[in-house]
Amino acid sequence: MLKYRDGLADLPTYDTTEEDWNIKINANECNMNLPPIVEDRVMGRLSRLEFNRYPNTEMDDLKEQIAANFGLQTENILIGNGSSEILEKLFFAFGGKNRKIVYPQPSFSMYGIYVKYSESMGVPVELEEDYSLDAEKFITAVKSSKAALAVICTPNNPTGNVVPLGTIEYIAQNITCPFVIDEAYVEFYGESAAGLLSKYPQLIVARTFSKAYGLAAARVGYMLAAKEITAMIDKACMPYHVNVLSLVTADIVYQMRHEFVPRIQMFIAERKRMIKQLKTLPALTVYPSETNFILIKYDKAVELNEYLENIRIGVRSFGNAPRLTNCLRITIGRREENDEWFKALKDFMERV
Amino acid sequence: MLKYRDGLADLPTYDTTEEDWNIKINANECNMNLPPIVEDRVMGRLSRLEFNRYPNTEMDDLKEQIAANFGLQTENILIGNGSSEILEKLFFAFGGKNRKIVYPQPSFSMYGIYVKYSESMGVPVELEEDYSLDAEKFITAVKSSKAALAVICTPNNPTGNVVPLGTIEYIAQNITCPFVIDEAYVEFYGESAAGLLSKYPQLIVARTFSKAYGLAAARVGYMLAAKEITAMIDKACMPYHVNVLSLVTADIVYQMRHEFVPRIQMFIAERKRMIKQLKTLPALTVYPSETNFILIKYDKAVELNEYLENIRIGVRSFGNAPRLTNCLRITIGRREENDEWFKALKDFMERV
Repeated sequence: MLKYRDGLADLPTYDTTEEDWNIKINANECNMNLPPIVEDRVMGRLSRLEFNRYPNTEMDDLKEQIAANFGLQTENILIGNGSSEILEKLFFAFGGKNRKIVYPQPSFSMYGIYVKYSESMGVPVELEEDYSLDAEKFITAVKSSKAALAVICTPNNPTGNVVPLGTIEYIAQNITCPFVIDEAYVEFYGESAAGLLSKYPQLIVARTFSKAYGLAAARVGYMLAAKEITAMIDKACMPYHVNVLSLVTADIVYQMRHEFVPRIQMFIAERKRMIKQLKTLPALTVYPSETNFILIKYDKAVELNEYLENIRIGVRSFGNAPRLTNCLRITIGRREENDEWFKALKDFMERV
Repeated sequence: MLKYRDGLADLPTYDTTEEDWNIKINANECNMNLPPIVEDRVMGRLSRLEFNRYPNTEMDDLKEQIAANFGLQTENILIGNGSSEILEKLFFAFGGKNRKIVYPQPSFSMYGIYVKYSESMGVPVELEEDYSLDAEKFITAVKSSKAALAVICTPNNPTGNVVPLGTIEYIAQNITCPFVIDEAYVEFYGESAAGLLSKYPQLIVARTFSKAYGLAAARVGYMLAAKEITAMIDKACMPYHVNVLSLVTADIVYQMRHEFVPRIQMFIAERKRMIKQLKTLPALTVYPSETNFILIKYDKAVELNEYLENIRIGVRSFGNAPRLTNCLRITIGRREENDEWFKALKDFMERV
């Protein structure tokens, strides 16, 4: 019997293989490939790539662009394999045996796994009945647990609602531990906590190219934080941890991010349209959303999910996850996809 | 003051930015880009990529190919961001507080860093005067330290020599802890320990696409091991840890690996030619190599390195690293590059 690190056996095994969905609205991806003008530039850059060379200045090039956009220095930016790697390394760097990490529940399911991976202790803070975050409750949890790290996700996955900027600032004023704002979906909302970084040196903003910028395949994310923090988290990242193909792709996408504005606006408009339509179905609870997805609650969610699976529509079900029983999360797709899944929902409900 | 994980501050800060070398022979890269016929297929595949989708079956596709080549099952294969991530996760999974990891010295410099990152204790085993590995000494170190993990690199970086297969088997017969054979350079040698996997269930073989297959930019590596081991190391890897661009590129390179045979043979021939030429310079000690690089020792190595830097030839110097004082590691480049660096070496030596 080989002896593995304590706790490793308790980590889940991930099966990320997807079924062959007709409409794939289960992973909050952008349901459009890159704008053709962007893809052309990406392909042009990839065709000139020195595949044989280790990464060199490509990461710095991307950092420079991001820094300039936020009025920061490159030393304030860290790039990772998706915001996943950023979060994994933050939990690792601030966590450890007997260290507590506070995060809301329900929220991004990986937080609990990063807690385990880093051998820390998770302190989930229950969201209210409407999934809003009670700032006082959160602050109390951080203080009473002497938390090593506090994390919130806003707009929150999978509930869709936001923690207002004022609340984030209020929390930042009242806690001293590092405080991560996971902004994976912020482009569908608009208000970022990045502007608070200069006032609260323990604040850390995590971002991704996987959602609004439609680069889930490339696995690129980044964080914004004080230089001291990025320097330490960088130590936890091995050299050459992000590959050149992804870096140059993200670099071009970021250069051309104005090309994504129309589609982001379209997804927002579609979200509003679909929320309105869903609200015409009285059996459903429809939660407000500032993201590219909508959470619904329905007492026949299990059967509905099965029905949708059978007609090759993949939505996200949460099984028996705490506070998410009978909930389904539906990613906003292209207009025709949205019409189709809505029709399917309606058909199911008229039949049962 | 934020409180980081114990030991994190002791990890080095990596500066991987390169100077603009005329001849770059400092990182054991393949000094040729992909064969055009391979690059065409890679670009074709990338041009059909769904950038907006998370990784799906791409990793399994690559695993299937590798498994078939080695007569293994896909469950025996784990893919990572370079063999770097594989090694990082192996050290993490088997290491931890008070756990000992045995590895040779001098060898790949990252072993010591993976030890620190995983909060383990490193037990370096000194190689002999000629850099050969004394199997008895290694076995004794593993047994007396009750090692949690043992690692060797063969052919060894940066010394270039090999641990013969018989010695590997002898060690495997005499230790019970997991035993990693880092075969980053094996394609330039030919004899792999992969054939021993079925006999020694604690054996783990780590491989990379970065060297012989010229894919350093893509960061893809893999390991071969018993299903139980890959399943556990997989738990330490976060979902979607390897991006699709790199996976499909490696997949095509592996499909077309016969296209790399002529260049691998050329690099081996060049290595032999350059060893012969270097041996005509009496001031040098030239170490035998079964890799795409040559280690030399020279009492004016510091000055020679400076001279080469000035004429934009980048070789690898090891500063004051243990047992590598006055050593330089020169990657075998293309024939014309080899002629040029050799001429520069000779010029320098005739002048001093």
